[in-house]
Amino acid sequence: MGNVFGQLFRITTWGESHGGGVGVVVDGCPPLLALTEADIQPDLDRRRPGQSRITTPRKESDTVQILSGTFEGRTLGTPISMWVRNEDYRPQAYSEMATTFRPSHADYTYQTKYGIRAWPGGGRSSARETIGRVAAGAIARKLLRERWGVEVLAAVTQVKHLRAQIDIERVTSGEIESNIVRCPDSRVADEMIRLIETVRGEGDSVGGIVTGIARGVPVGWGSPVFDRLEADLAKAMLSLPATKGFDIGSGFDAVGLKGTEHNDPFRSVEGRVRTVTNRSGGVQGGISNGETLYFRVAFKPVATVMHEQNTVDAGGRNATLKGRGRHDPCVLPRAVPMVESMTALVLVDHALRHQAQCR
Amino acid sequence: MGNVFGQLFRITTWGESHGGGVGVVVDGCPPLLALTEADIQPDLDRRRPGQSRITTPRKESDTVQILSGTFEGRTLGTPISMWVRNEDYRPQAYSEMATTFRPSHADYTYQTKYGIRAWPGGGRSSARETIGRVAAGAIARKLLRERWGVEVLAAVTQVKHLRAQIDIERVTSGEIESNIVRCPDSRVADEMIRLIETVRGEGDSVGGIVTGIARGVPVGWGSPVFDRLEADLAKAMLSLPATKGFDIGSGFDAVGLKGTEHNDPFRSVEGRVRTVTNRSGGVQGGISNGETLYFRVAFKPVATVMHEQNTVDAGGRNATLKGRGRHDPCVLPRAVPMVESMTALVLVDHALRHQAQCR
Amino acid sequence: MGNVFGQLFRITTWGESHGGGVGVVVDGCPPLLALTEADIQPDLDRRRPGQSRITTPRKESDTVQILSGTFEGRTLGTPISMWVRNEDYRPQAYSEMATTFRPSHADYTYQTKYGIRAWPGGGRSSARETIGRVAAGAIARKLLRERWGVEVLAAVTQVKHLRAQIDIERVTSGEIESNIVRCPDSRVADEMIRLIETVRGEGDSVGGIVTGIARGVPVGWGSPVFDRLEADLAKAMLSLPATKGFDIGSGFDAVGLKGTEHNDPFRSVEGRVRTVTNRSGGVQGGISNGETLYFRVAFKPVATVMHEQNTVDAGGRNATLKGRGRHDPCVLPRAVPMVESMTALVLVDHALRHQAQCR
Amino acid sequence: MGNVFGQLFRITTWGESHGGGVGVVVDGCPPLLALTEADIQPDLDRRRPGQSRITTPRKESDTVQILSGTFEGRTLGTPISMWVRNEDYRPQAYSEMATTFRPSHADYTYQTKYGIRAWPGGGRSSARETIGRVAAGAIARKLLRERWGVEVLAAVTQVKHLRAQIDIERVTSGEIESNIVRCPDSRVADEMIRLIETVRGEGDSVGGIVTGIARGVPVGWGSPVFDRLEADLAKAMLSLPATKGFDIGSGFDAVGLKGTEHNDPFRSVEGRVRTVTNRSGGVQGGISNGETLYFRVAFKPVATVMHEQNTVDAGGRNATLKGRGRHDPCVLPRAVPMVESMTALVLVDHALRHQAQCR
Repeated sequence: MGNVFGQLFRITTWGESHGGGVGVVVDGCPPLLALTEADIQPDLDRRRPGQSRITTPRKESDTVQILSGTFEGRTLGTPISMWVRNEDYRPQAYSEMATTFRPSHADYTYQTKYGIRAWPGGGRSSARETIGRVAAGAIARKLLRERWGVEVLAAVTQVKHLRAQIDIERVTSGEIESNIVRCPDSRVADEMIRLIETVRGEGDSVGGIVTGIARGVPVGWGSPVFDRLEADLAKAMLSLPATKGFDIGSGFDAVGLKGTEHNDPFRSVEGRVRTVTNRSGGVQGGISNGETLYFRVAFKPVATVMHEQNTVDAGGRNATLKGRGRHDPCVLPRAVPMVESMTALVLVDHALRHQAQCR
Repeated sequence: MGNVFGQLFRITTWGESHGGGVGVVVDGCPPLLALTEADIQPDLDRRRPGQSRITTPRKESDTVQILSGTFEGRTLGTPISMWVRNEDYRPQAYSEMATTFRPSHADYTYQTKYGIRAWPGGGRSSARETIGRVAAGAIARKLLRERWGVEVLAAVTQVKHLRAQIDIERVTSGEIESNIVRCPDSRVADEMIRLIETVRGEGDSVGGIVTGIARGVPVGWGSPVFDRLEADLAKAMLSLPATKGFDIGSGFDAVGLKGTEHNDPFRSVEGRVRTVTNRSGGVQGGISNGETLYFRVAFKPVATVMHEQNTVDAGGRNATLKGRGRHDPCVLPRAVPMVESMTALVLVDHALRHQAQCR
Repeated sequence: MGNVFGQLFRITTWGESHGGGVGVVVDGCPPLLALTEADIQPDLDRRRPGQSRITTPRKESDTVQILSGTFEGRTLGTPISMWVRNEDYRPQAYSEMATTFRPSHADYTYQTKYGIRAWPGGGRSSARETIGRVAAGAIARKLLRERWGVEVLAAVTQVKHLRAQIDIERVTSGEIESNIVRCPDSRVADEMIRLIETVRGEGDSVGGIVTGIARGVPVGWGSPVFDRLEADLAKAMLSLPATKGFDIGSGFDAVGLKGTEHNDPFRSVEGRVRTVTNRSGGVQGGISNGETLYFRVAFKPVATVMHEQNTVDAGGRNATLKGRGRHDPCVLPRAVPMVESMTALVLVDHALRHQAQCR
Repeated sequence: MGNVFGQLFRITTWGESHGGGVGVVVDGCPPLLALTEADIQPDLDRRRPGQSRITTPRKESDTVQILSGTFEGRTLGTPISMWVRNEDYRPQAYSEMATTFRPSHADYTYQTKYGIRAWPGGGRSSARETIGRVAAGAIARKLLRERWGVEVLAAVTQVKHLRAQIDIERVTSGEIESNIVRCPDSRVADEMIRLIETVRGEGDSVGGIVTGIARGVPVGWGSPVFDRLEADLAKAMLSLPATKGFDIGSGFDAVGLKGTEHNDPFRSVEGRVRTVTNRSGGVQGGISNGETLYFRVAFKPVATVMHEQNTVDAGGRNATLKGRGRHDPCVLPRAVPMVESMTALVLVDHALRHQAQCR
């Protein structure tokens, strides 16, 4: 339970970090979309460990294979099964994890809930699980782009105290991809990279914020009252590993404003109803209003650090544990395609739901 | 679509603010729980407009009736249908809303999505819709309390810039209910009340933060990877009207800390595995870890203000609109039972899911 | 759990036979459908006890009220809540049922599963529960008729050994409604009525077959592999009280034929692809093929009989029980609108699903 | 859509007959069940083509591989991904199918619904799809056996006009597997085998009936009103390829009996409540009553025959088509593990649902 996401564009992910592989089945993709592995692989490459000097050096090529759901390069309307074989299997590197719980990881809760856990590499709670999401998200993004002209982007906008300025209406994928931290504000990006390198040198880690953006969303997506667009986005983001918060539009800053300051006045602009400001973040009453959708996702610092920490062992005895081997000082650059994927999955699901009820 | 919440303790809410009534059907409640209207009404009274001088004066008694699912005062295990009749039906008070879209409300998006809307009173997007949630939540809270010893609370912890200090481990329902703003920090509560009264006098509104708390949650609730406990809580909270953000544990503040500062060390305490700190907010890897669950929900200032604002009409022409009649300067005190209810609904659903898979 | 039907046109029914009432919430109905109680009531009247001399004489007017989801006579796209108040509350008539299990009823299984049951009138297992389905089904039928030109009908085609001949391509609602047994083969209908009257005189009951028909279903409805159209129809029919079997097209008779005898050859007819025969019953590979959909539903004889029968009491002791009071010798005429409703609910759900994925 | 089955023990199948492979993801399996490929492979071998002289000679070893969800031979409580690689890829054998629709197959409906189809081998509508179901069903059967002592069986009980006699209370798996037609009535089994061989010689095919049995089901499984046990079984069976009907207990024969003849009297037997007869088929009011569950599934004759048949081509022009190559005269022996699997999937899902709501 809990490994299915979406109602009409429904994905099921599977796989432990150190089993046979990881993958996803997409049920509900419309037929006749041109689709090959070449549409998926680039996003997996952006998610992959070892892609730059500021991410974990784990070595996996993460080559995706489509096993079903396409024929002669187009989708059939049947389930699309995709998977990536696990390569970097080194259970010995994790031997201490068999008997000791890593602080702020999922070892203890998985062990207690299920009475068993795949301790090498974190099993299902590993970031490796997101491969399936990113593969499915790549299809969702392509559908959004081709069928509805919707563009989904994400960018690192804060690393620890370093904040970037971005223009959500104009920032481009090229600007985001122009540096290894995936921050389109190039001056701050350099500082971020230096900070991450310093932290890596300390055997420590940092968190930050990824901002998600969707441009071109038509008016009308979202299904109140429970499946408001922002509610489904919040769930999608908080379902990513290491996330601690989500806000949309004005978000937590809305708290400091009065109603007269916060409201977005409507104006007619070239025959379209527009809002003058966009504190709503592109959603009103749970339904997209035609303005750019934007939201922030808070990521905590990676829990694995190269320092000795207090913990307990599987027998409930106090112990200490020190991370060793590979070390990921900052998950943010790799989180960018994860945020994009989950955003796209939410949007395409609501696009299909809208088409079902209100066409 | 979109009016069903939960998988095993599943609720469906219905009702417009100015139709025959509002209600909810609860499917999946375990049998043999003692239940009468007296278990539901107190929470509805806390949600009700007109309960104090700092909320909207709309007059509704909101008297709940249980129509099915109980027999001789106990639940049958069959659907529990509850409803509240609408009383304060004054469509003429809303006549301008028929043709003009209120800024930062759902008028424009509903009209565009569905091609029709129940313009008197905001229809389905009215806060009145939450009656069904609060009624269902009262059952969920009772179940949590009686079957698992879990206590669910919420409190107002910020109004605009005014921040309260609370101790999530010890704050009581009595402290929260001791003042009309539902802030247990009594000194700040007085300031909050004065601020809200001032803002009301200005015909304006303010937002703030409600903190949700669940104590006594056992280790093991939550269904990774998508249905992580925090993901379902995030969705639940962002599905409430006027919410803009959610964070759990350290939340957005996690961004400023390094891994060594942020991790929660484990310690064995009286034979139980505990964390020394609780930046995780009671959840690790999407599963409860036995510590107190706490999270924040950001509410924007109420969109209806007694000032003239720019907007457009149903024909897409520029227009102005000024709120008139009843005015709710701050939704926060009434949001407290809403946050409690949604929290309880998420928890009881995961309690049942855990029981299904892992008992 | 178990009281929700459908994915996109989703209904939740509620209500015990002797509580406050029975009802349904429809989530997912498209907006802008003209709808008032007058669209619902006729089907409820056809389902109602006491409508003729061959059904149970229970006295209920079963007057439906729409509580939400419409505005100025049209649907809003929001949940439609409908209910019927219970009137004929005579728990004393059922006092023996409090302590003794009626044979071939649900008393024993409900009591054992839930540890409690609403013994007066059978609670949730009463045929009264179908009021919610028929009310929702009336909306589904109207949608099918107006949006897709689909006509849904059902007719009694067998009572005990008496079999009617019907032409599924031409039988009309008028012919079906022309007699109280709802069998369009008027000669056999008279025999059926006499048989039911005789059986009633004996304090006994009979079962039979209702045939469901849908004409005008376009090619393409149905979602293989699990949600084949015939699979969802089978579930829908077996979810009705007193049903024991379902078959579609050639059905159980297919068993006696060879492949060369059973296959439906395709032919081009006036530019359309048609099948020469229709043993497939309008569905191939789980998807409608444009031919008339038809299927049979077997109903057992009503379990309540006016004879003393062996049984056990709530303490597990052998006992006897004799039905008394009202007696329904044959549920078939009232089952006709139930079969129509469930058929329509399945079809409209798949119409919306098709529109979502393949438009 | 439509490729997910179950609510708590939820499976998603994927795969075309001539793509990379076929498989299934099981979400919701309880942890700590001993599980390896050796638990799955025997049922796949019983489903496999080419296993005897009376089935299709298609050559596939159908070797299953578990890719996730287990660790050191036990289930983790995480998704179990299993797959079988496709080997017998001969698209040229199907070249006519690219442009001509096979009568009573799914070619025409898939093409029209999706605008595309994987014409080699029938794509998703091939019986090969059931590999995923049988693999998942093997896990479900093991769970039922080990956790609840429930035994699930199926047997061929009719081929064309040849009917077997079986004792549902005593028939064993050994008797069923004692001959290649999987009919435990050995005298009739020989006739069935001769009939199938004759029909094969004619290039024709036959259908028949498979009876499903579950012994040891405790009282209380099933979720009325829509998710009655028999309703979910009916859906499960009608979701199998080539099925035309389902009935439970007395089934269609119930039609010929009066209430006094059909009812199952209760008796106290050795401290347990039992029914003297079992026309109910083990289910009353949608909930298991502790008696043996039994039902029949009607299979039509296989649509592929080695005779020239009338049909149309993709351009809508009249044409003829003659099956060639491999020929499966009777699907029934291979349908036995399919029926068992779907039965087990329904039962284990309801076992978990019961545990969630009513433990």
